[in-house]
Amino acid sequence: MTQTSLALTMGEPAGIGTEIAAKAWRCLRHAGPSFFLIGDPRQIQDVPTALIRDPSEAKMRFGDALPVLPLALPAPVQPGRLDPANAPAVVAAIERAVSLALAGQAAAVVTNPIQKSVLTAIGFPFPGHTEFLGELAGTGRPAVMLLACPGLRVVPVTVHMSLRAAADRLTSDLIIQHGRIVAEALRQDFGLDRPRLVVAGLNPHAGEEGTMGREDIEVVAPAVAALRAEGIEVRGPLPADTLFTPRARATYDCALCMYHDQALIPVKTLDMDGGVNVTLGLRIVRTSPDHGTALDIAGSGRADEGSLVAALRLAASIAATRSKAV
Amino acid sequence: MTQTSLALTMGEPAGIGTEIAAKAWRCLRHAGPSFFLIGDPRQIQDVPTALIRDPSEAKMRFGDALPVLPLALPAPVQPGRLDPANAPAVVAAIERAVSLALAGQAAAVVTNPIQKSVLTAIGFPFPGHTEFLGELAGTGRPAVMLLACPGLRVVPVTVHMSLRAAADRLTSDLIIQHGRIVAEALRQDFGLDRPRLVVAGLNPHAGEEGTMGREDIEVVAPAVAALRAEGIEVRGPLPADTLFTPRARATYDCALCMYHDQALIPVKTLDMDGGVNVTLGLRIVRTSPDHGTALDIAGSGRADEGSLVAALRLAASIAATRSKAV
Repeated sequence: MTQTSLALTMGEPAGIGTEIAAKAWRCLRHAGPSFFLIGDPRQIQDVPTALIRDPSEAKMRFGDALPVLPLALPAPVQPGRLDPANAPAVVAAIERAVSLALAGQAAAVVTNPIQKSVLTAIGFPFPGHTEFLGELAGTGRPAVMLLACPGLRVVPVTVHMSLRAAADRLTSDLIIQHGRIVAEALRQDFGLDRPRLVVAGLNPHAGEEGTMGREDIEVVAPAVAALRAEGIEVRGPLPADTLFTPRARATYDCALCMYHDQALIPVKTLDMDGGVNVTLGLRIVRTSPDHGTALDIAGSGRADEGSLVAALRLAASIAATRSKAV
Repeated sequence: MTQTSLALTMGEPAGIGTEIAAKAWRCLRHAGPSFFLIGDPRQIQDVPTALIRDPSEAKMRFGDALPVLPLALPAPVQPGRLDPANAPAVVAAIERAVSLALAGQAAAVVTNPIQKSVLTAIGFPFPGHTEFLGELAGTGRPAVMLLACPGLRVVPVTVHMSLRAAADRLTSDLIIQHGRIVAEALRQDFGLDRPRLVVAGLNPHAGEEGTMGREDIEVVAPAVAALRAEGIEVRGPLPADTLFTPRARATYDCALCMYHDQALIPVKTLDMDGGVNVTLGLRIVRTSPDHGTALDIAGSGRADEGSLVAALRLAASIAATRSKAV
């Protein structure tokens, strides 16, 4: 398996995907991890490319050129201009990467950002990567999004829905299900023997004994008790505002958050070296940078590869840890 | 007015208030700003004290000793042990500080943390300092809480209520009212000629064009338009998760947030030099450290004075700016 490289998808062609792929190759070419891009080699600028036919060739070529498993785009690309004609190729790159990972020909899948609106226009029925990957490589359990940056990991228990809907749909079962998947992933993927979880309260001050909302008493606390009864080390519900101070962050390995912004605000506020998005609960290893397609700066050469580099490194680390754990 | 010092209240006697007051005096004794403590001098340890009868004495004594305007506690204090017998003196210290500031005998009021539960036990009817100060020194408009740390200022538009209640009670008028008070304070108190405001969306991705909740379209956006029509420089609703990255923070002077944790998470995640709480919309200048009474470490000597020092400095700065503006 030492010859196995990471598969990187092209993402939205009008975005910054190929630019940051080339910059990430420059950064990683000597020390690795090796990866290959699934995309159109005509899009790559400023770095040498090596067309490959098989993922196994990537590792040997990686020191000299960015390996590309070619997937031609039907329409010419203009930076910042979305073109539905290229959308099927964006989806095909993801499918190809996943099938290679499932077959053991890629160590993991790292995805460049996609633009939901142009995929929706061609009938792509998924809200995003996470759900699509759940369809392609799921395990029957929900695919769970974990955001990681140096010193902090967070998991939103509810994700892309309004704040009211998040309060409505939050159940003890949902928190328990997420807690189990996260605890297992911290052991198998992150190599933590005894992972420490915390659970944020839904309401300010975790409801302050029920005076600011009953959900923390009636929904969150029972879920924490149930997870603890299963032998998982977990505390909560804890007030969210003081859960992400430097001192508090040092006391746990992952924070379960009750809604999207509660999880994403602290990670993006820190923004150290770029955050990474990891999908837990799949049959494959998958990471991605935690930014979008950045159409506004596409083609300008100003895109920052930091988050993609962190995503590639973390994918390789998880793949190595998981292969040892199995 | 150069003889005017800041009034610092004792806060909860069983907490860390007097410990951090003494440490703050050590830190500020040479460079200032000068302040005097309203509290029981028997509580002060490890630093010399100077009993004063009149606030005007504080400035001259400040270089050699911590000036104390005495207010005796009826019951002996045990660190970490709340005692309702001392609660009336806690309230009296706040009232005294406010009356001195209203009379021009104190430049500003800085408050040490109080413990709500023990004050509630003696019939104190306010949820916290902010509301009590609104009663003592209000202007008829709501007292607004601003949290500041180096590089970031935030204002929660709704504060101590459940997440569902925040969504229910959020109105365009409430946002407009807060926006006006904040814009005015940034000019008069922070010396910014042309303050730049941003407004966070209530829902993830600011509702993503209504697909994740309608409030950002129906409640937040009209408030932003109304504030802009009044000549205030303001953008929004913006996705909250990307609003607090280092790059984003550089583009505005204050972020209006729709609920408690949306505002407090980024400030406390950064936790640089200690955050400061400022109450806007009062007839006096008032700041406080942004932490609690820390009963768990009271008496141990481990309390950090950083946030109180920042609160004292900011109070002096606001008082100076406001006196020039008037």
